[in-house]
Amino acid sequence: MAEMIHLPRSTFERLKMYRKVLEATKKPYISSDEIARFLEINPDLVRKDFSYLKCQGKPRVGYDVEELRKELDDLFGVNNTTNMIIVGANDLARALLSLDFSKAGVKVVAVFDTEKENVGKFIGEFAVRELDVLERVIRRFDAEIAALCVSKDRAQATARFLIEKGIKAVWNFTGVHLDLPEGAIVVDEDLTQSLLTIKHLLKR
Amino acid sequence: MAEMIHLPRSTFERLKMYRKVLEATKKPYISSDEIARFLEINPDLVRKDFSYLKCQGKPRVGYDVEELRKELDDLFGVNNTTNMIIVGANDLARALLSLDFSKAGVKVVAVFDTEKENVGKFIGEFAVRELDVLERVIRRFDAEIAALCVSKDRAQATARFLIEKGIKAVWNFTGVHLDLPEGAIVVDEDLTQSLLTIKHLLKR
Repeated sequence: MAEMIHLPRSTFERLKMYRKVLEATKKPYISSDEIARFLEINPDLVRKDFSYLKCQGKPRVGYDVEELRKELDDLFGVNNTTNMIIVGANDLARALLSLDFSKAGVKVVAVFDTEKENVGKFIGEFAVRELDVLERVIRRFDAEIAALCVSKDRAQATARFLIEKGIKAVWNFTGVHLDLPEGAIVVDEDLTQSLLTIKHLLKR
Repeated sequence: MAEMIHLPRSTFERLKMYRKVLEATKKPYISSDEIARFLEINPDLVRKDFSYLKCQGKPRVGYDVEELRKELDDLFGVNNTTNMIIVGANDLARALLSLDFSKAGVKVVAVFDTEKENVGKFIGEFAVRELDVLERVIRRFDAEIAALCVSKDRAQATARFLIEKGIKAVWNFTGVHLDLPEGAIVVDEDLTQSLLTIKHLLKR
């Protein structure tokens, strides 16, 4: 089990980027300079971030890629499965079901929809459930995350309902700014933001 | 037209976050302190980022939200449409077509697939095209962005082909690290990364 280190959010976000670099490299050892060059960031920042980790780099050799990956995987808890439900049985839900979240240690356990007419239809291997049974399903599967894929007009009410019924974190695909009780975790997935980055890079 | 200011990438990424805050607020004025509090970042950083902008805050009042939004929209070029193609006619493509990218100034103009058997089928309002006509379509629509939704094993070859045929930026949903010619823009959209953030926040 990983220790409960309290990492600054910015460090954490960079550690995720380092993990991607480690996934991409084929070398057994990597230096902080190489990682920094790859990501176009300051090498001192990489070294500072790595000071939170147990893994020690060897002078003139760098970090053992396998060891570093293992430590980051432990830190990110990817080997402990967290259960997730999907709310909103639409194309986005289908797209999410086609992805493999096991490498983040996340497993989809049920799909819900706010429209009664969709209940019982199959989406991938899941029969769509109605929100009436939400609390029971959350408890039974110990589901902590909900991917919120409903329409904008239902986003706020549905998110609040999910938190009331025991969901701890909302992965928000609706593009709506959610106002939820203190302690509820919201991570916004706004694909438009990536397009802004692309447009900005195109202008250079 | 926005001026071609060269912004540091980190500043640019924060400006996107500020724009989201401006979208969410209902107030006519907002201070850098309020924005910083909302995003849990250092107010000095907000003020430094705003020093790149023309919009000036008024003492004890803050920034005019409308004016600031307008400047950011100009800066991000959201009022100029950039054309995008989608490559890979699957659930993810369907999900992307259901989203509204016009607020980022991006418009989907065609959908392609690498499998001949999918060519001609409809996905949303688009008849799926084959890659043989890619170059012609890119030129005709002046498409600059390609959303890459193909399977992992086809990711690298397809991305390279897109760049060869005139695409300037690949929005990469494949999870594969793409190795492309110098100058090609790649923005990775790895949804797994958000799940790592959620898992991290759940542990706190």
